[in-house]
Amino acid sequence: MNGSVRILGIDPGLTHTGWGLIESAGSHLRFLAAGAISTTTAEDLPERLCRIHAALMGLIAEWTPDEAAVEHTYVNKNPQAALKLGQARGIALLAPASAGLRVAEYQAMEVKRAVVGTGHADKIQVQDMVKRLLPGAALRRADAADALAIAICHAHHRGTRALLAQLARA
Amino acid sequence: MNGSVRILGIDPGLTHTGWGLIESAGSHLRFLAAGAISTTTAEDLPERLCRIHAALMGLIAEWTPDEAAVEHTYVNKNPQAALKLGQARGIALLAPASAGLRVAEYQAMEVKRAVVGTGHADKIQVQDMVKRLLPGAALRRADAADALAIAICHAHHRGTRALLAQLARA
Repeated sequence: MNGSVRILGIDPGLTHTGWGLIESAGSHLRFLAAGAISTTTAEDLPERLCRIHAALMGLIAEWTPDEAAVEHTYVNKNPQAALKLGQARGIALLAPASAGLRVAEYQAMEVKRAVVGTGHADKIQVQDMVKRLLPGAALRRADAADALAIAICHAHHRGTRALLAQLARA
Repeated sequence: MNGSVRILGIDPGLTHTGWGLIESAGSHLRFLAAGAISTTTAEDLPERLCRIHAALMGLIAEWTPDEAAVEHTYVNKNPQAALKLGQARGIALLAPASAGLRVAEYQAMEVKRAVVGTGHADKIQVQDMVKRLLPGAALRRADAADALAIAICHAHHRGTRALLAQLARA
């Protein structure tokens, strides 16, 4: 893999949408920024979705990421909760795609495997590994750490894909 | 209620998003246009959401509606289906809201009650009443008829709200 690539990881949610930006060059990862977009029930649903969308579009304009990755949420909760999460997730996929970025989706297990080495790691283990892999990362919120984990997962997978393509050409 | 108002009704879905535009002046309703935005699994999810969003934004630019209404879908299906629907619904709420339109949400029962007179009407009864209330409406797809029903429901409710406000002032 030549050059570096900026990756935006998004962990969607109606109340808190975590986001994390990293730079990946070969096997080297660098923390750029992370945070969360929070909305409350004081706003109505269309307003909340608008605000998540505007915040993501603002981040994309400011940080000009090359690619995006969103967790492919598995939901086993009640259908109404899944519908609510889906609405936020739709926005998380739309924003980077409408800005022309390729958007990858990863299952939670793939994210855990890429970051910790096992698909059965717990949230604390994931957050600890994110801190180790990205020294200097300011992680005030768990949502931000989760979003960075998704970005790291994408950095690993796209590296493997590039390597496989290189081997196929050799 | 003075003047007329253009209402965009949206029946969201990942495969088919129905839309319908009506003009409401007092108790008079007029059909403007209706149709459906269809996507297939040949496209990936971010692309599908982008296309639904772009089509809705195009409709809003072309028809300049004043207000929008979206069905507040009740889902009792499996959570994965609810998540999928939620993603399309997020886009259906975002598009008009980001264009500055007020977006109202109505339960399916409210839509049926407004159009047929009872919350327990079936789909065929709703579609028949939409055709009667909007003579000349070209309804090639059921999704388009459902979207028009949502727009009609909003026309009724906003009329009642305006009347109540008028009575309160008197």
